[in-house]
Amino acid sequence: MAMEKRSLLTSLTVVLVFGGGLVTRAGRIPPPSKKPAFEVLPAALVDRAEAIRERAPTESKAYDFLHDLTSEIGPRFSGSANDRRAVEWAQRKLKQLGFSNVRAEEVTVARWHRGEATGEIVSPVQRWVQPLALGGSVATPSGGIEAEVLEVAGLEELAKLERAAVAGKIVFLNHRMRRSRDGTGYREAAPNRRHGAARAAELGAAAALIRSVATSTTPEAHTGMTHYEEGVPRIPAAALSNPDADLLEEQFGGGKTVRFRIELTCRDLPNGTSANVIGEIPGQERPEEIVLLAAHLDSWDVGTGTLDDGIGCAIITDVARLIGELKPPPRRTIRVFLAANEEFGLAGALTYAKKYASDVKLHVAAMEADFGAGRVWGMRSRVADEALPAVRDLGRLLAPLGIEYLGNYASGGADLLPLLRYRIPLFEFPQDATKYFDAYHSANDTLDKVDRDDLSQIVAAYAVVTLVAAEFEDGFGRAPKFNGQWPYPFDRLFEGKDLPR
Amino acid sequence: MAMEKRSLLTSLTVVLVFGGGLVTRAGRIPPPSKKPAFEVLPAALVDRAEAIRERAPTESKAYDFLHDLTSEIGPRFSGSANDRRAVEWAQRKLKQLGFSNVRAEEVTVARWHRGEATGEIVSPVQRWVQPLALGGSVATPSGGIEAEVLEVAGLEELAKLERAAVAGKIVFLNHRMRRSRDGTGYREAAPNRRHGAARAAELGAAAALIRSVATSTTPEAHTGMTHYEEGVPRIPAAALSNPDADLLEEQFGGGKTVRFRIELTCRDLPNGTSANVIGEIPGQERPEEIVLLAAHLDSWDVGTGTLDDGIGCAIITDVARLIGELKPPPRRTIRVFLAANEEFGLAGALTYAKKYASDVKLHVAAMEADFGAGRVWGMRSRVADEALPAVRDLGRLLAPLGIEYLGNYASGGADLLPLLRYRIPLFEFPQDATKYFDAYHSANDTLDKVDRDDLSQIVAAYAVVTLVAAEFEDGFGRAPKFNGQWPYPFDRLFEGKDLPR
Repeated sequence: MAMEKRSLLTSLTVVLVFGGGLVTRAGRIPPPSKKPAFEVLPAALVDRAEAIRERAPTESKAYDFLHDLTSEIGPRFSGSANDRRAVEWAQRKLKQLGFSNVRAEEVTVARWHRGEATGEIVSPVQRWVQPLALGGSVATPSGGIEAEVLEVAGLEELAKLERAAVAGKIVFLNHRMRRSRDGTGYREAAPNRRHGAARAAELGAAAALIRSVATSTTPEAHTGMTHYEEGVPRIPAAALSNPDADLLEEQFGGGKTVRFRIELTCRDLPNGTSANVIGEIPGQERPEEIVLLAAHLDSWDVGTGTLDDGIGCAIITDVARLIGELKPPPRRTIRVFLAANEEFGLAGALTYAKKYASDVKLHVAAMEADFGAGRVWGMRSRVADEALPAVRDLGRLLAPLGIEYLGNYASGGADLLPLLRYRIPLFEFPQDATKYFDAYHSANDTLDKVDRDDLSQIVAAYAVVTLVAAEFEDGFGRAPKFNGQWPYPFDRLFEGKDLPR
Repeated sequence: MAMEKRSLLTSLTVVLVFGGGLVTRAGRIPPPSKKPAFEVLPAALVDRAEAIRERAPTESKAYDFLHDLTSEIGPRFSGSANDRRAVEWAQRKLKQLGFSNVRAEEVTVARWHRGEATGEIVSPVQRWVQPLALGGSVATPSGGIEAEVLEVAGLEELAKLERAAVAGKIVFLNHRMRRSRDGTGYREAAPNRRHGAARAAELGAAAALIRSVATSTTPEAHTGMTHYEEGVPRIPAAALSNPDADLLEEQFGGGKTVRFRIELTCRDLPNGTSANVIGEIPGQERPEEIVLLAAHLDSWDVGTGTLDDGIGCAIITDVARLIGELKPPPRRTIRVFLAANEEFGLAGALTYAKKYASDVKLHVAAMEADFGAGRVWGMRSRVADEALPAVRDLGRLLAPLGIEYLGNYASGGADLLPLLRYRIPLFEFPQDATKYFDAYHSANDTLDKVDRDDLSQIVAAYAVVTLVAAEFEDGFGRAPKFNGQWPYPFDRLFEGKDLPR
């Protein structure tokens, strides 16, 4: 009986909610409709873009790429032996897939060793927990640091405290990340990870603990960079999983004093080398004009770097391959840029910008894939005003994928940030991030989190825009200057003192 | 717009699917209806049972009990220091809650130390994974065991193999547990954990690895007993998380030879002591007649033992407390039995059965709570035929909680198994197990997995049946003899050679 009721509900959903549309596991497939009118894109280009959009679900090999990368290489922390193996692997793979000009361009990277982490609630009752050092954290002294815990809701509450209330304590930034489709919960939470240790250290704290910037309720903690600052003591910083953070939180009941011991053995290593891996589908008419597709090949050292950002590498490589197999080949060059060191300094992106500064005017469009495995629900551009009619046409091409055009305020991705100063036209695709923060930056970032249908939809979205960018004669002009606030602490990149004008 | 559509869907769900009932987060609240006709339960008892059913959501303190147990004690592996602390804690708690005759009855228990576990895919590509020793496993030699991996789907496939195909290898039992409401996926999967090592060892295997008997896709592996057998070599046995098992599985692609290294440092410890904790709500008219409520106080050493089985302890303690606060007090005694050593030998249950063998005929009913935090969806009994009308009345009392009477074939729980030979009337409450196997026996078994509304519903279900069992003059007679197959390898308990007749 219960089953029949469920079937009834499903039927109702289909009929009543989507008004005749068909709901499948892959999402919403719209009913047949009149073909939209296009403003400026030539009909032949529209046809080709629609064709590649429809082919992506059956012809995408992005999952295979991702499977091989994560099962053959796995975690590839910047500058590690596995990172070097990934660089070799990616070059082989790009060559196998028919890319031209495949090369690895050396990048000098900071390195860091995670070591071991031990955490213990000492009182009011003894309990073991499992912290995970934040990226770049210094070690504790041997034997650890034991101190009273000061619980704060976040940076704002911490900023109101006097030094006397903080000095010598372990500050526990207990912000619980909000789950959200658009990732706004991350923007609220991440500053605690980035700046918690520095702000606590300014007030004399002995160490900083954060509730993971993550929505998972499973036992894994989530890492990510903590940013030490000039002139501020570097104190050990680690994350607790949500359940461990709950446990710590519960100890404060009735105003109890809580003591914690943390021991970290992480340490900086001497600088090492990694590489940006680049491959191209050469343009046939204007090979010097480049549509840049970026993702980052490095990952954190925990998990397998599937969602962050193996999947981005898989998406852009597959998109370029699909377009490269078209007859005729694309007018402009499509360059796949698998960046080094995104998670630990963005040295790959900076190296790329420096190296190609003289070429950046020939980057006619750029986009990055680095937001996990959720379906694309929107598209933002950053193009010249006169190119907006073409962008509206792109919106029409994307609509059947369930993608809405959101506006002309794209900011690219982390690996494109250094290029922003050059006003390259950008496109970006917000993806459904509801589940992303369960997995990223943790041991939970594994292949089973990827749905093949969703992946095909992402590939289709990037393919449509990439093809049009490679083919559309007029291009997208010069992007408006960026004056907005950044969700990332990358201000130094925009100062760009060491980047060519 | 999307939001409005969702609201519409919700409305339709309410109106069309549940036929006028009201759906809330707490579940289904039935429409007002005519009071069902009761066959044998006196109207006054029906009124009292309905009253306690309605009070449970507002008056339950089960969550507080569970919060305190898991935050103040946490994991309590049988015979460990924390197990002893839990025994002290439980006695204090029962006394605070007004129980009488609170005591700890010593139980001799086997003990085991988990130690460390290291797992490494050696080839075709080197990858680290994180195994978790199965309960009772022997250690590997220092440095571990490195061998070729033989992948089998499960015990059946293993049984078909010749010794030559298995000898010297690490057998990987790669059964993926099916998610199911009624836990049948567990029954299919668990034999691999219990018997995989013994069956592999008979064929000369060097070690046994299993895909965790678990539905989670997160990085934690799930433990549980493995059963060594007389005359069969004891080989190391460990579980991999589902993502790690996926990774291992992927290595076999294209018929590749896979080598694995496992190192375990677990070891048996000398027997130790634990205790069954008992407390009573004394009956006012027939204090010598006992309604037995069982759960187990011990847990695995990973996680906090919230779902397995802190919540059971919380449920039965709260039910007895609620009934103890009624005026007048119950006719019969309600005994709360917090069993020792359920996870590692059932010594608590056996000790109880031996100690109370002369009293077992005075156990007028028994039930156990040991199936997690999901809502109760059914009730089974095991009573004399002449008591079935009263059981049907119980079904009528439970129906408003969304609970269906399933039949007279209850088998109790693990801690009641030794009592089964005495044909004590049993009741059992299948709970929604859809999510249970994401958490149990792992670091993921933490308090955040508990929904307070669901917990109140479980308390209400147990409270109704417990009250009626304590009050109903005629009782439930003698349960039919049990001849069925067991889902557990507890046959020796039924042989019962050392139990009084």
